[in-house]
Amino acid sequence: MTYAVIMAGGIGSRFWPRSRKATPKQFLNVFGDATLIQNTIARLQGIVPPERCFIVTHERYTEQVKRQLPAVPEENILAEPVSRNTAPCIAYAAVKLLSIDPDATMIVLPADHLIEDVRTYHNVLSVAIEKAQQDDALVTIGITPTHPETGYGYIQFEGNVSNSDEHQAHPVKTFAEKPNLATAQRFLESGDFLWNSGMFIWKASTILDQMAQHLPEAHEAFRPLQDALGTESEAEVLLHSFQSCPRISIDYGVMERAGSVFVVPGSFGWNDVGDWLAVYGLSEKNEQGNATKGNVIMQDSKGCYVQGNDRLVALVGMTDAIVVDTKDAILVCNKESAQKVKHVVDYLHAHQLEEFV
Amino acid sequence: MTYAVIMAGGIGSRFWPRSRKATPKQFLNVFGDATLIQNTIARLQGIVPPERCFIVTHERYTEQVKRQLPAVPEENILAEPVSRNTAPCIAYAAVKLLSIDPDATMIVLPADHLIEDVRTYHNVLSVAIEKAQQDDALVTIGITPTHPETGYGYIQFEGNVSNSDEHQAHPVKTFAEKPNLATAQRFLESGDFLWNSGMFIWKASTILDQMAQHLPEAHEAFRPLQDALGTESEAEVLLHSFQSCPRISIDYGVMERAGSVFVVPGSFGWNDVGDWLAVYGLSEKNEQGNATKGNVIMQDSKGCYVQGNDRLVALVGMTDAIVVDTKDAILVCNKESAQKVKHVVDYLHAHQLEEFV
Repeated sequence: MTYAVIMAGGIGSRFWPRSRKATPKQFLNVFGDATLIQNTIARLQGIVPPERCFIVTHERYTEQVKRQLPAVPEENILAEPVSRNTAPCIAYAAVKLLSIDPDATMIVLPADHLIEDVRTYHNVLSVAIEKAQQDDALVTIGITPTHPETGYGYIQFEGNVSNSDEHQAHPVKTFAEKPNLATAQRFLESGDFLWNSGMFIWKASTILDQMAQHLPEAHEAFRPLQDALGTESEAEVLLHSFQSCPRISIDYGVMERAGSVFVVPGSFGWNDVGDWLAVYGLSEKNEQGNATKGNVIMQDSKGCYVQGNDRLVALVGMTDAIVVDTKDAILVCNKESAQKVKHVVDYLHAHQLEEFV
Repeated sequence: MTYAVIMAGGIGSRFWPRSRKATPKQFLNVFGDATLIQNTIARLQGIVPPERCFIVTHERYTEQVKRQLPAVPEENILAEPVSRNTAPCIAYAAVKLLSIDPDATMIVLPADHLIEDVRTYHNVLSVAIEKAQQDDALVTIGITPTHPETGYGYIQFEGNVSNSDEHQAHPVKTFAEKPNLATAQRFLESGDFLWNSGMFIWKASTILDQMAQHLPEAHEAFRPLQDALGTESEAEVLLHSFQSCPRISIDYGVMERAGSVFVVPGSFGWNDVGDWLAVYGLSEKNEQGNATKGNVIMQDSKGCYVQGNDRLVALVGMTDAIVVDTKDAILVCNKESAQKVKHVVDYLHAHQLEEFV
């Protein structure tokens, strides 16, 4: 059987001041009425029903998940006692799924991405699921790049984006870090690089086997949990598993080290909505290139994104500015600096201004 | 006897959102603890005591004036029933002062300017007062220009800034409108142009005589008030005087037309604090050229002015921005566009958003 595992433990610090520790990005309605995590579950309809969706999140967000996703059974909410990286999160989910279904296939998805073409997305997932089940493979989804983006990691594969069958799994050659612009341009021209979407498909047994080979400390850390699930000691063992597991991403820890890794290329209007610049890019703009939400006055301004709250926001003579107003904090940011918004959150931590985090 | 007449009826729309119809610029503490009008009265100490200071303001501000200036007698607050320009404001004050003292000399001052060197300011005023009293002259104060400012009007005089005795009244040649930059540079180089400070010194009888000659409609409009002061019909007559007086500045209406007009040049750290850019210019800045007030975080930003309120304001990657936060509205403005802030107020009026005016 196929299950979805939604990773929803992030705090989205590049979305400050709207994304807060108490209400991170995935629980916000950045676009439209539904929140990003609600959309993530909704677009699985036809592939995985809510009863087989699992949400891995920090325990402080479990109530929020229950409220936002009433169709997901409470027992499917896997609460992380501490926030680590994706390797422990995925280990936890794999152990849990194996205890339910020895043949479980996992679709691992970030909670906060945007996908426009759901039909193509489903087709791509189906190919990935088939590959994972038939060949015990580690499969990831690679997005056909449209521009030399420096904000994403890349995947080099055996094939070419111009003539590859989208609906086919290709062996992965290498994973590449976020490149600089020149490198990103080379990647784009080479034709055999895809954007790393952070979506993974594999059998629970496969990922645990691969973890045992390539990241044995993580496998070791979560092995006691297999017997503890459903017992009185579950919480205690879980905490110990997380504490003893290395803080590492599944990409570094397993994907880059493993042998049988495949990628299915896809073009389905994907965006990781990584910062306010991405939100601007995805928003409807007027003739001056301004996108606004709320009570906003624009004078001689262009290329700006403004998200008002209760108050009036007036921009005069501004170009390429991002303004996000909330009840207790305002961000005024140059569009080029959107990635640096997380530094504000670092500053807040460093200066004991936790109330604004 | 010498009296001060403080013109305090403006609404300071270039200082939106802090300056509001209910609390205009002159009643705000833009710098330090005292408000601009409090400083205006305070710096007259030694020249004119508060008992001889008169405040001309719109009637909606009389309570505010009383609260802010307890040393000024209530009967010295001259309430304008409607906001017009400076000619009716000055006519009203002149009629009032003449009724108290036939030899009254008036120092007419804007309520919202900044002066650093009070001793020199007093010396310059003394020269102007003497000239006004001895020769029945219309006297104004001209500021020795320090840079080719395009935001001020200019006064051309018979003399030269480089070798003129500051403490002497010189005949005025012409008044010039706010120039463009090339003209401002010519003015500066010519050496016989001063900034128009909007400060005037004359006997009450002189300005009324000159008004009768050069702006007879205004003189006519306020003549009935001379007999009505202190009677039951005062309010009614006053309203009629204002309504029938042309809406014109004293510069256009009298100064540019009259014959015997003099200027005393002065350098006393004068600033009309005309917009937020002027406030930035006058504020203490850090190494990055940022001036901030309130709870502000700066990341990779330079040349910015931020006036926070209760909330946290974070700037990321911004250059030359002005951010002013208030309870119900925020301004985000390019420094070059500071003069255009008044367009926001125009917009608010045009769109029936009076609550934000």
